[in-house]
Amino acid sequence: MRVQSDTGVEQLDDRLVLTWGDGRRSTFHHLWLRDNCLCPSCRHPSVPERLVDTTSIPDDIAPADVELSPDDELVIIWAGEDHRSTFPLSWLARHSYDDGPRPPAGESRILWTDGPPDPVPEVAYDDVMTTDEGLRRWLVQLQRHGVSFIRDSPTVPGTGPRIAGRVAFLRNSNFGLLWDVVSKPDPDSLAYTAHALAPHVDLVSREMLPGVQLLHCLVFEATGGDSLLVDGFACAAELAATDPDAYELLTTTPLPFRYRDGAGTDVSTRVPMIHLDHDGNFHEVRYSNALLAPLDVPADQMLDTYRAVRTFARLLRSGRFELRLRLQPGDVMCFDNYRVLHGRSEFDPNSGHRHLQGCYLDRDDVLSRLRALEATAE
Amino acid sequence: MRVQSDTGVEQLDDRLVLTWGDGRRSTFHHLWLRDNCLCPSCRHPSVPERLVDTTSIPDDIAPADVELSPDDELVIIWAGEDHRSTFPLSWLARHSYDDGPRPPAGESRILWTDGPPDPVPEVAYDDVMTTDEGLRRWLVQLQRHGVSFIRDSPTVPGTGPRIAGRVAFLRNSNFGLLWDVVSKPDPDSLAYTAHALAPHVDLVSREMLPGVQLLHCLVFEATGGDSLLVDGFACAAELAATDPDAYELLTTTPLPFRYRDGAGTDVSTRVPMIHLDHDGNFHEVRYSNALLAPLDVPADQMLDTYRAVRTFARLLRSGRFELRLRLQPGDVMCFDNYRVLHGRSEFDPNSGHRHLQGCYLDRDDVLSRLRALEATAE
Repeated sequence: MRVQSDTGVEQLDDRLVLTWGDGRRSTFHHLWLRDNCLCPSCRHPSVPERLVDTTSIPDDIAPADVELSPDDELVIIWAGEDHRSTFPLSWLARHSYDDGPRPPAGESRILWTDGPPDPVPEVAYDDVMTTDEGLRRWLVQLQRHGVSFIRDSPTVPGTGPRIAGRVAFLRNSNFGLLWDVVSKPDPDSLAYTAHALAPHVDLVSREMLPGVQLLHCLVFEATGGDSLLVDGFACAAELAATDPDAYELLTTTPLPFRYRDGAGTDVSTRVPMIHLDHDGNFHEVRYSNALLAPLDVPADQMLDTYRAVRTFARLLRSGRFELRLRLQPGDVMCFDNYRVLHGRSEFDPNSGHRHLQGCYLDRDDVLSRLRALEATAE
Repeated sequence: MRVQSDTGVEQLDDRLVLTWGDGRRSTFHHLWLRDNCLCPSCRHPSVPERLVDTTSIPDDIAPADVELSPDDELVIIWAGEDHRSTFPLSWLARHSYDDGPRPPAGESRILWTDGPPDPVPEVAYDDVMTTDEGLRRWLVQLQRHGVSFIRDSPTVPGTGPRIAGRVAFLRNSNFGLLWDVVSKPDPDSLAYTAHALAPHVDLVSREMLPGVQLLHCLVFEATGGDSLLVDGFACAAELAATDPDAYELLTTTPLPFRYRDGAGTDVSTRVPMIHLDHDGNFHEVRYSNALLAPLDVPADQMLDTYRAVRTFARLLRSGRFELRLRLQPGDVMCFDNYRVLHGRSEFDPNSGHRHLQGCYLDRDDVLSRLRALEATAE
């Protein structure tokens, strides 16, 4: 919507209607305008919080006077109180709501419907660490493709957290802030064995998944242990197209996940395996064969539920929406843990050392950083 | 369901039906039984994860032989593979699913429908720190009433995190792991001023709220600054009873929240203000007048949305479901941040010092610890 000097304003009973330079019209209700007043007594001048109290605005709030100023501002003098609100027209254009919410910036995902991204999205370690443009490129790749590889990082422990520090603080869990993926004598996760791992998301039994995983390869001399990544959203879209009944069931039936170790951790949740957000878009794919708890749907729905789970799980393992590769020391495999499942083939722990380190960022913080970088870049 | 030696088992086409000692019957499908086999090759003997691969089980899996052993176990020899599954009858009783999922243990909440809990739930610092029973009592009070006060704690910084350490790691945020609630010269939150704070939940613009807040009073010499707590679930229940249209709108319409400081944090989310879980129970109340972003529902729904938000906000501030008190040094006010909103009256920063420290725990970890304690207590 272009803001131009020939914008017009019309006052109706409970709203203003702005006509923009291109002829389009936007409604702004009096109540909304008063509630979003930008003056320093309604919006704290330094703290990023609103002071205006929504409950205290009279139902019949209305302007006594409205004008468009020469500097492209809408100025309202309110009736019944000594208060003046000034809105830049560009701010109003950005917050106009005629058609409801707009998709958040940067949400344009490219699914692996026709195969994984080629070439593989990547960015150099030095670029991410030293330039905002490198950091932005990495986050955009993660947002768009669900995966990005950071290349040529130092093969020293703690590199993952240093990269994550460019975004925000680390997400903690019962496995700690930074975990070493090696074959251990007394493991509390299959990750810490030499077993193959079928595609799964991490921390599947927690209410909120970690948003992004950084898996840093320090040493890899062992035979086997190829990494695999699967686009869960592409699989979900495929299921919707080919088996609508299974898709319907998996998007609406909460299924139980549970992680219970011997050390006092017993975390469980119930979430649909294909979890849509409030607007009906893909929010996350929750799948882990290892942590799926005994299904507890009513008996007359059990076989349908198994059919749907098995159909979807087979799609995840079909190799159709998959990237398979062998990590090199210095690689940091980064992926959107809401969308891209990860796994590995079995490796032979006697054939050589294999040492990865992993850590997590929350999705909120990744999107926050990206928004801030894009605001600066604009 | 009592497990008794006169339990009987009947094999049908795709399921077994157990008849318990009290005459009740439970269905266990062959597929479910094979999928939940408890043997060490299907469930890792030390790692708390499943090894059996759900996708690899044949559709027509069926027992070759079934028997109830003298030690109250169901023993199945599977047809077509050399595999035997043994299920303790007590395990089957606990996981039977005829009527679908059962409410998780400890979810019995008592709403403040007839006023806040009286006496106020409390537990002594020493009991929480040195006994499992004290810890359990604290967590049960939080779960049941949404609030619990820890009394007689040391008035030294870092006490909150030490208490939280009895449960799990702290939840981090852009405000840090431990934050000092004092009137500051350059605040990034209204909490760090002397302003009154209307009832709100913390970190409302993040995808997942922190589950429990611990607010530790170190010094309180200032005039004013009474604390208030409001049961958001009691308010939501009241709204459902008195204004079903507003309730329907607030449980189904995602509303935008946003926190954007000058330091690169720009976190936003869209969630219904009264957020139900997948089973239709109260999950959380999302309310903060300060961080509600400009509403972006379609124009023809804007006035209805404002009506609902304002009605609910007035209920939250009505004082009807509210606890109001003045913290004493050594008190730790702990509350369920999904359910209980908190606020304070204005205080006079020139009348004396007021110093609180706050920190968070995630709900997953609180419930995990409670489950583990209750399993031990059984």
